[in-house]
Amino acid sequence: MPRRTDQLKLGAFLANSGHHVAAWRHPLAQADASQDFEHFKHIAETAERGKLDALFIADVVGLWGHHYDALSRTARAEHFEPLTLMAALAAVTEHIGLIATATTTYNEPYHIARKFASLDHLSKGRAAWNVVTSVVSDEAWNFGREQHVEHGDRYQRAEEFVEVVKGLWDSWDDDAFVRDKDSGVYFDVQRLHTLNHRGEHFSVRGPLNVARAPQGHPVLVQAGASEAGRTLAARIAEVIFASSSEVPAAQAFYRDIKQRAAAFGRDPDTVKILPGVTPFIADTREQAQALFEEFQALIDPVLGLRLLADTLGDDIDLSGHDLDGPLPPTPAGQRGSRRDKVLELARSENLSIRQLYLRLAGGNPVIGTAEDVADTFEAWFEARACDGFNVFFPYFPGAIDTFVDQVIPLLQQRGLFRLNYEGQTLRENLGLPRPGNRFSDVGARP
Amino acid sequence: MPRRTDQLKLGAFLANSGHHVAAWRHPLAQADASQDFEHFKHIAETAERGKLDALFIADVVGLWGHHYDALSRTARAEHFEPLTLMAALAAVTEHIGLIATATTTYNEPYHIARKFASLDHLSKGRAAWNVVTSVVSDEAWNFGREQHVEHGDRYQRAEEFVEVVKGLWDSWDDDAFVRDKDSGVYFDVQRLHTLNHRGEHFSVRGPLNVARAPQGHPVLVQAGASEAGRTLAARIAEVIFASSSEVPAAQAFYRDIKQRAAAFGRDPDTVKILPGVTPFIADTREQAQALFEEFQALIDPVLGLRLLADTLGDDIDLSGHDLDGPLPPTPAGQRGSRRDKVLELARSENLSIRQLYLRLAGGNPVIGTAEDVADTFEAWFEARACDGFNVFFPYFPGAIDTFVDQVIPLLQQRGLFRLNYEGQTLRENLGLPRPGNRFSDVGARP
Repeated sequence: MPRRTDQLKLGAFLANSGHHVAAWRHPLAQADASQDFEHFKHIAETAERGKLDALFIADVVGLWGHHYDALSRTARAEHFEPLTLMAALAAVTEHIGLIATATTTYNEPYHIARKFASLDHLSKGRAAWNVVTSVVSDEAWNFGREQHVEHGDRYQRAEEFVEVVKGLWDSWDDDAFVRDKDSGVYFDVQRLHTLNHRGEHFSVRGPLNVARAPQGHPVLVQAGASEAGRTLAARIAEVIFASSSEVPAAQAFYRDIKQRAAAFGRDPDTVKILPGVTPFIADTREQAQALFEEFQALIDPVLGLRLLADTLGDDIDLSGHDLDGPLPPTPAGQRGSRRDKVLELARSENLSIRQLYLRLAGGNPVIGTAEDVADTFEAWFEARACDGFNVFFPYFPGAIDTFVDQVIPLLQQRGLFRLNYEGQTLRENLGLPRPGNRFSDVGARP
Repeated sequence: MPRRTDQLKLGAFLANSGHHVAAWRHPLAQADASQDFEHFKHIAETAERGKLDALFIADVVGLWGHHYDALSRTARAEHFEPLTLMAALAAVTEHIGLIATATTTYNEPYHIARKFASLDHLSKGRAAWNVVTSVVSDEAWNFGREQHVEHGDRYQRAEEFVEVVKGLWDSWDDDAFVRDKDSGVYFDVQRLHTLNHRGEHFSVRGPLNVARAPQGHPVLVQAGASEAGRTLAARIAEVIFASSSEVPAAQAFYRDIKQRAAAFGRDPDTVKILPGVTPFIADTREQAQALFEEFQALIDPVLGLRLLADTLGDDIDLSGHDLDGPLPPTPAGQRGSRRDKVLELARSENLSIRQLYLRLAGGNPVIGTAEDVADTFEAWFEARACDGFNVFFPYFPGAIDTFVDQVIPLLQQRGLFRLNYEGQTLRENLGLPRPGNRFSDVGARP
């Protein structure tokens, strides 16, 4: 294959003390980051110094489950709400994109359309919405429901939700606000559009009370892995977070999504696929491995067993079993399920219970020198396994400083990453087109 | 009465180009402020330079009505969403309080509890929630309803909504997050509280995924004028926005609210009543009056007639009538209604149609020198007609600069206003107590 002429797109995943589940315990990590805006400001400024495309924050509208014995061993029970955090970061940054997560399952489209349009104006065109449908069933309990909305229903609702939001974002033409002091006309009534949506899940009249966003629409992000998720991603997403850990699987996902996008009439180059990756970087490979092991050693068994139970199912009781012995006999899960894959992993590598939960907790690490990390990024990119990465920094603040100071210059030397931001908006930096207005631009599609 | 020993509390009302309905047309006003964060940042910095207590922003989850011919003559059709704007302002200020409006009629308590708790952490204790129940019936159309929720139902829902939010704010003890790197315990499970609310309008389990706010609870603000509104305000509000334009009426409202608060077992001194006031300031009274007239002259008749129709009712057709002639014969409204008061005003002062709508549009101005404004503030305050003011600046940015540079020093010289912020949090500056936790503090009331 010819070498690619485009460049890597890089996102930085925000997490209180870092992405590693036990990061907060490590001496390098700030344990009380969750309530410290200055901490996040430093991360944002560092990412911007490194010319990264965007900051990204995940979200759950509740706690990450109700197994408090395990949860209390993590820094995940409290965090800034994404839209307020990103708005605050907008005020102290100039170039970096701001990707906030919001669920379509427990929100209303008008609120979401409005908040992201407002964030886009506040940031002069740097807002993006990561569309999720909620994975944690506990969220339902905070919104008057006894049970989580079923998977298929969530995706149907999500699709309509996004269509309503995009319609509201087109409420005004870009030039609707004429603000003519002499005539006294502030906006041209002819350039105001009322959505009048009536659908299965929503009736929303509009118009939005925010002017059309600098980006036309804030960038849409999604992370669909299931069949319904991939379809939604291929239909609406401009950035897709992937979770493949091996090149062949990543290539297959990449091809599949790009083909699906093309089948929806979209230009596949305007769909950027970014797998998550966790780099553990040190001056030598041995030191990097040792650093990784330090973090792994901080995972409390209570937490490790909970990670296993979340994957295998709560029907498997591992209490009383020797952590350094094998898994007890366990019925297989559904064919192709995550449970089955994990059981197969334990069997094939003869892993103890502890080794298995450490493997799950370790995620998708790249362990080595800055050169090793740059090599990995280059290999994936040139193999068309991705268009860039969503970088999970194992700990904050140090890990992003190391990445920006050591890996970014290597990528830049190789021509794989920008020396300066290409434009003012996130769309411009990602190389994404600015959407036309469905009501007034010839050829613009809803 | 003895002179008061406390000091004025002052809020600054944020509006795009200013509070006057035609402000954006005036040469002194910035017309495109609505999309310019730097504009709001300047206002916030100026207010903070003047040691004002708080910034305040009103809200509607939709347009201010659907009479676009009139709306298009105002700068009110588009504006930043309050919570994203206030979060951004939190990042560029240090002392000033941030009062954002959010409706209980078209929101969910979990989202509201979370966003305001997040804003309180981002701002290190400067968040406040202005609780409204939505006055513009068009909002219903953006949330799947054909009609606005009825007034009484809105207030019942509001009361339960606020109780749920306060309960969620107590999800964690102040010291729940121990973050002990050695033991690996990030939070103490015993200091986590699950609300388990099941009520008429909401079922919300909790807990919140944000630590207890620096202020315990963000400050609660309300602007209840109706019977139901006054009851809610007296029960829950710590700051109350009032709308009286004469001292006797303001004194009566002040006494009434303080007595109602006492009847709910609250200390009346912890309920601060701030009427709205619009100061037009110049070096002489004549110049100030001329400045006021300049703004009034910019009100387009289409807009003026709409203001009249919004007050008198759409059954009165004024089209074709001479604007400089009297109102046509008009049936009276309900006894004590706003319609009746306006009709009585027109009759008693023999006002033309134009004079009447200008009177409505002019609001509650104090027109004069800085000395005059300081005198008015002092007179109201000493007459126990208020505890301070919510200042509506007629235009931005100049009017707040004038106020801070000329009026604030006079108030300070008279001992009526602070020389420096008393504390770090809005509560401390307002002299409000920090609420105990209903689950864990002896004597704390829900």
